[in-house]
Amino acid sequence: MPKVTQEHLDARRQEILDGARRAFAEHGYEGATVAKLEEATGLSRGAIFHYFENKNDLFVELAMEMNTRFGDILLERGLDEAFRALAAENPEWLAVLIETESRMRHDEDFVRRLESKAADASPRIQEWFEQQQAEGKLRDDVSWLELGRFTTSLLNGLALRVAGGDPFDVEAMLQLLDSAIAAPPKPQKVRRPRPVAKSKK
Amino acid sequence: MPKVTQEHLDARRQEILDGARRAFAEHGYEGATVAKLEEATGLSRGAIFHYFENKNDLFVELAMEMNTRFGDILLERGLDEAFRALAAENPEWLAVLIETESRMRHDEDFVRRLESKAADASPRIQEWFEQQQAEGKLRDDVSWLELGRFTTSLLNGLALRVAGGDPFDVEAMLQLLDSAIAAPPKPQKVRRPRPVAKSKK
Repeated sequence: MPKVTQEHLDARRQEILDGARRAFAEHGYEGATVAKLEEATGLSRGAIFHYFENKNDLFVELAMEMNTRFGDILLERGLDEAFRALAAENPEWLAVLIETESRMRHDEDFVRRLESKAADASPRIQEWFEQQQAEGKLRDDVSWLELGRFTTSLLNGLALRVAGGDPFDVEAMLQLLDSAIAAPPKPQKVRRPRPVAKSKK
Repeated sequence: MPKVTQEHLDARRQEILDGARRAFAEHGYEGATVAKLEEATGLSRGAIFHYFENKNDLFVELAMEMNTRFGDILLERGLDEAFRALAAENPEWLAVLIETESRMRHDEDFVRRLESKAADASPRIQEWFEQQQAEGKLRDDVSWLELGRFTTSLLNGLALRVAGGDPFDVEAMLQLLDSAIAAPPKPQKVRRPRPVAKSKK
């Protein structure tokens, strides 16, 4: 009997998640029947449900993956790349995700699992923001928490837009976001200062 | 027979909408049965469905009302007040609205009706942004469209937050939004001008 390595198990698990994501995106949560999940993953239901208890469990896993994804990109490649990744997301998948996530907000187990993942990431994200403030890259007249809330709310609002089939110009959004949260330019950057002509009320 | 004025009809219609909004907020879209709608409005189903064809119709009307509401506040009382109104919204109602709206995105009639309302408001909102740019209140190095998209996305992202039961500090968000979209401060505001050291390209 061939030895099944952890690596192999992980790869198979990821394969199922990727297939399931495609199936949910194409057919919606309800429409992604077990038969459709088999088709999209190329695996039998037996194989699929060896890794995940049921369809709901699969979906929760995908939702958690998405919730940590942008945080991971932020930590590894910075804020701009997180927004660029969102702009490149599959609109159908985002739409199913937002719709199903908000429906599942009544499901205490789902909420608890999502929140525990979010709590895992949160100290590292706090650290990232505070580090950027300490390095003079982000403004520090506002707490990291408010900077993070502003940024996340913008990201979520743009996700709603993408999900609605309405793409956005990510570079324009990044330019505006930068003005909102970046540290103000250093005084020496001021060009051609002129004598003050009149006092301004 | 008493004369029924248009004013009376409008008031009654609004009464139904307000009651229905409370019922949807409390019980969710599915949970807001006709009996619950009767209870919340204090009116019989006959009276309710004299004004609205069915429950879906009632909901669509409420969704359209919300979609134009923040635009109306923007036009009448400015951007800050629109964000303050959102912060004061009923989280339960926002949650039902977002969930049901995203579910109805597959309903072509619903989408068409929402979009026609949005199209009605859009020229006035464009005019508002362009006027603010002309008056030097909003930056004009970015088109009004991008300023509008940024602002709307932030508002929608904050709505998701409120709907998730997570309120936000509206004044902190407004401070950051202002840095993003306001016109940069005038040069004469710069204090202590110093001699220019090198020539600028």
